[in-house]
Amino acid sequence: MSKILRVNMTDLTARYQDVPVKYKLMGARWLTSSMVSDEVEPTCHPLGPTNKLVFAPGIVTGTAAPTSARISVGSKSPLTGTIKESNAGTKFSPMLAKLGIKAVVVEGQPKEGMWYLLEVTKDGARLLPATDLAGKGAYATTNALIKRYGKVGVCCIGLAGEMKMAMAGVCFNDLSDRASRYSGRGGLGAVMGTKGLKAMVVDNKDGPGVSIANQELFGQGCKKLTEALQTHAITKPKGALNTYGTAVLINILNEAGGLPTRNFASGTFEGAPKIAGEAIFEGNKQRLGKELYNHACSPGCIIQCSNTWHNPDGSEQVSCQEYESVWAFGANCGIDDLDVTAELIRISNDLGVDTIESGGTIAVAMEGGLAKFGDGQKAIELMQEIGKGTPLGRILGQGAAFTGRALGLVRVPGVKGQNMPAYSPRAVKGIGVTYMTSTQGADHTIGYTIAPEILSVGGKADPLSPEGKAELSRNFQIATAFLDSTGYCVFIAFAILDIPKGFEGMVQSCAAVLGTNWTADDVTRIGKEILRKERAFNEAAGFTRADDRPPEFMRYEALPPHNKLWDIPNKALDSVWDF
Amino acid sequence: MSKILRVNMTDLTARYQDVPVKYKLMGARWLTSSMVSDEVEPTCHPLGPTNKLVFAPGIVTGTAAPTSARISVGSKSPLTGTIKESNAGTKFSPMLAKLGIKAVVVEGQPKEGMWYLLEVTKDGARLLPATDLAGKGAYATTNALIKRYGKVGVCCIGLAGEMKMAMAGVCFNDLSDRASRYSGRGGLGAVMGTKGLKAMVVDNKDGPGVSIANQELFGQGCKKLTEALQTHAITKPKGALNTYGTAVLINILNEAGGLPTRNFASGTFEGAPKIAGEAIFEGNKQRLGKELYNHACSPGCIIQCSNTWHNPDGSEQVSCQEYESVWAFGANCGIDDLDVTAELIRISNDLGVDTIESGGTIAVAMEGGLAKFGDGQKAIELMQEIGKGTPLGRILGQGAAFTGRALGLVRVPGVKGQNMPAYSPRAVKGIGVTYMTSTQGADHTIGYTIAPEILSVGGKADPLSPEGKAELSRNFQIATAFLDSTGYCVFIAFAILDIPKGFEGMVQSCAAVLGTNWTADDVTRIGKEILRKERAFNEAAGFTRADDRPPEFMRYEALPPHNKLWDIPNKALDSVWDF
Repeated sequence: MSKILRVNMTDLTARYQDVPVKYKLMGARWLTSSMVSDEVEPTCHPLGPTNKLVFAPGIVTGTAAPTSARISVGSKSPLTGTIKESNAGTKFSPMLAKLGIKAVVVEGQPKEGMWYLLEVTKDGARLLPATDLAGKGAYATTNALIKRYGKVGVCCIGLAGEMKMAMAGVCFNDLSDRASRYSGRGGLGAVMGTKGLKAMVVDNKDGPGVSIANQELFGQGCKKLTEALQTHAITKPKGALNTYGTAVLINILNEAGGLPTRNFASGTFEGAPKIAGEAIFEGNKQRLGKELYNHACSPGCIIQCSNTWHNPDGSEQVSCQEYESVWAFGANCGIDDLDVTAELIRISNDLGVDTIESGGTIAVAMEGGLAKFGDGQKAIELMQEIGKGTPLGRILGQGAAFTGRALGLVRVPGVKGQNMPAYSPRAVKGIGVTYMTSTQGADHTIGYTIAPEILSVGGKADPLSPEGKAELSRNFQIATAFLDSTGYCVFIAFAILDIPKGFEGMVQSCAAVLGTNWTADDVTRIGKEILRKERAFNEAAGFTRADDRPPEFMRYEALPPHNKLWDIPNKALDSVWDF
Repeated sequence: MSKILRVNMTDLTARYQDVPVKYKLMGARWLTSSMVSDEVEPTCHPLGPTNKLVFAPGIVTGTAAPTSARISVGSKSPLTGTIKESNAGTKFSPMLAKLGIKAVVVEGQPKEGMWYLLEVTKDGARLLPATDLAGKGAYATTNALIKRYGKVGVCCIGLAGEMKMAMAGVCFNDLSDRASRYSGRGGLGAVMGTKGLKAMVVDNKDGPGVSIANQELFGQGCKKLTEALQTHAITKPKGALNTYGTAVLINILNEAGGLPTRNFASGTFEGAPKIAGEAIFEGNKQRLGKELYNHACSPGCIIQCSNTWHNPDGSEQVSCQEYESVWAFGANCGIDDLDVTAELIRISNDLGVDTIESGGTIAVAMEGGLAKFGDGQKAIELMQEIGKGTPLGRILGQGAAFTGRALGLVRVPGVKGQNMPAYSPRAVKGIGVTYMTSTQGADHTIGYTIAPEILSVGGKADPLSPEGKAELSRNFQIATAFLDSTGYCVFIAFAILDIPKGFEGMVQSCAAVLGTNWTADDVTRIGKEILRKERAFNEAAGFTRADDRPPEFMRYEALPPHNKLWDIPNKALDSVWDF
């Protein structure tokens, strides 16, 4: 008996409605992108009253399927102007799912300056004034709600979202109730801010749970997937991710010459080893006096890649030093000190901002002379400005492209207004194609060709070669659109790309929950449907092929150490959409 | 023997080249838009090394044709991202024309922080270091160059252009060498800034002059046009423009309920009479002890609409208090004091910024709480921030849309990133169609339907009715594209719309200079060609119909006093391009 929870912030009502037939099989990104396409006028102002914010757990979220507790948040993005889906792993998601909630749709707008809390339990949903929470950071907000409600799923925004800044993310609590799991990209926290929705709590106590149409098939599917995850070198216990976290990629990308350094001016960073996953592992070991393996961010995750960083006295400083975050504040800002990157991540989490965008913004600010590359103290001060809402903070809070424009800069490494993640397109061409052609601005998870280009996972492709990269990116983008709809973490991709049985199990688990007979063909079919829908929204919003282009400077500035330009023809970029 | 002057800022050369056949008949906007289309990659970064800046006098500029001393500046705009042409009346333009220069093309980029002066005489053109001028305002720069060179045409940028701000205009000297005539719109001053070109001086002494293919026809044409201008109530000596200046429109628009007030929240301003053209005339009379009629901004102008405003002691404070400028800093900011608007205009001229965009920006800043509507002192302080290059100044200097985004606002009255001029689209529908469908963002001169909608010139149209406005705007946009190419001021339109002989004379004068047999049909043909070319550039840059739309709030917020919404269907907007 699943349902959609519709929260109207104009009249302050929260009502359940039946799930329309067309949405019955959908979950997560498939559902958020479909609902945004169906209900949001593509040319609307992202911060205006007609935009909507949709939260949806995945197809298998809330079941025993491993590593499947992702939540998708969808809207029209204030950062890119495109449709946007950004997902996070959090207990909030299975809790919603176990209450039978397929999606929460937040619409309308209350009076300016009014703040509310949405409370969701098996008995219903209601909006309460949240005056006491307004003005609080994400840590304090989450702590206050956990103290008040106990073991609940928490979603909130920090000060950046309250100030409607385009780098604001939507924050969720992790398994230990840290305010650390983010639907970070695309400014969805700002949309939540315009809705006057400071936070949501969900408690699934005595909820109905997620019904599974075919228990036997479900068991088989989960078993195959679990086996794949537990045997693949990247995802197995004490494997790469569990030991070193995602930051295991720092040294790897640095060696490949694809680690964007000092605002994408180089592909190698001399300080890389000092901020790599290995250094995090060793640093923690030294400070704790023992080896520390990583933990799960959300219920049922068996990859467990989430790390913590500790102070010299052994106390916890922050969770977590992800690859993207460490890179954004580290190599991209020329900073080689994990204590500094940790502090910058902590500030970001508390403000409620995307670390990729905020690190990229600091790098652009450094390019513009607001700080020297490598100056960690100044980087911390710049991040603190954001929370103060000073004019400088207002500039930075709008992201890297905005900051670049304020400073009159040309070297701004973004696509559709969103700063590029931690792979340099001139050195790793396939991911560049993904950045440029994605429906959501420069994004890596949306078509992670790094797997074959750098990690030899799912085949092998020469990162420096422009050949075949459109097709590679297209295939990854299609499969990922499906994967982003299941509730599974994208990191299961490593295992299921290399282990066919794992892939089969993933599809079976979804089919089993829904009672369909999906096969690999349906993965492709559904992936394409999602991409086409998102693309159509963007076209109606005014995007064209001309927006699927690299920042111009990558065409005339060669990237050391390979001294490569961006050399994939526009025609090849356009061919990504030939399907 | 006309030629093109090509100034390369990378290798610091200035070279003449023959005019390619395809450009032979072109002038001003026709030529700048054609050269930008031919030579600038539409997706380039407007502030990058591959953008170009083109200056071109009109077809009849430099001849004895009345009111024809306009210069067009064209480029890809940093404000809108579209192609851009912005023109001004200045002696700089006929001086270029009389040297036989059809266009000056500025391309490339010098080393960051280097500034140059281009000197153009009959003996040639050369670039000189301009270190002494860098950091100077437009007034000081112009004064220094006039002092150094004597009676020359001067073009320069102020601090806003040096800082690459998107509201920076290109400044020219008027007949009395005031730094007061602006190609203001679209941030072309920022492009000039990226080229390291602080200023240009042109001296046409002993130049060849403009050759006229058919002197007799030219004489006939000019005579007809002159007669029309000297008899029409708006353009005749001691007529509306010569007496009250363009600000004669303040009371008229206020009575029509179409004077945008307090950031487009109302169509009437209770303080309108205090800032109207009549008040300027009376104020000057009081302070000077005699009636003061307006003067010509450029050689050969017989309309003479340019005013000056005087201090209580009779000394000159600023030239000029145009309708758009007085409105932008007056009604739109809720300010009803001409001494304050004059000071804001003076600051704008000195900084080198577009008064429409800067007034609109202050209004948006007021909407966002940075000052109260009506607070003139605070408005002055905000404008001064721009020159200081503080973070707040960097926000404001990028224009109204940027400022609105920094402050998280939805009520930002722009199209394609350019703030709307002094006519409210909800109360004057035709001009709204022009704003939305123009190739250059919200612009009024590009299809001035105010003539029939408000002034009963060139027919009569009900401003509040949505009917027929697409066709009306289309016709005005087509004719204006031609007019913008002649060198004639757009204000001749009043006379030639009402007096057929005047129109005939205008066409004949152009045909006579070029040796063609153009008729009214050619005006339409050429106007369409120009629009299509500009539109094609924009399409290649990524613009679509979705960009030809009003700010969303105008669809749901009714404008007092008529309480009208924007109600022209998108289909009608799109039909403007059905030709």
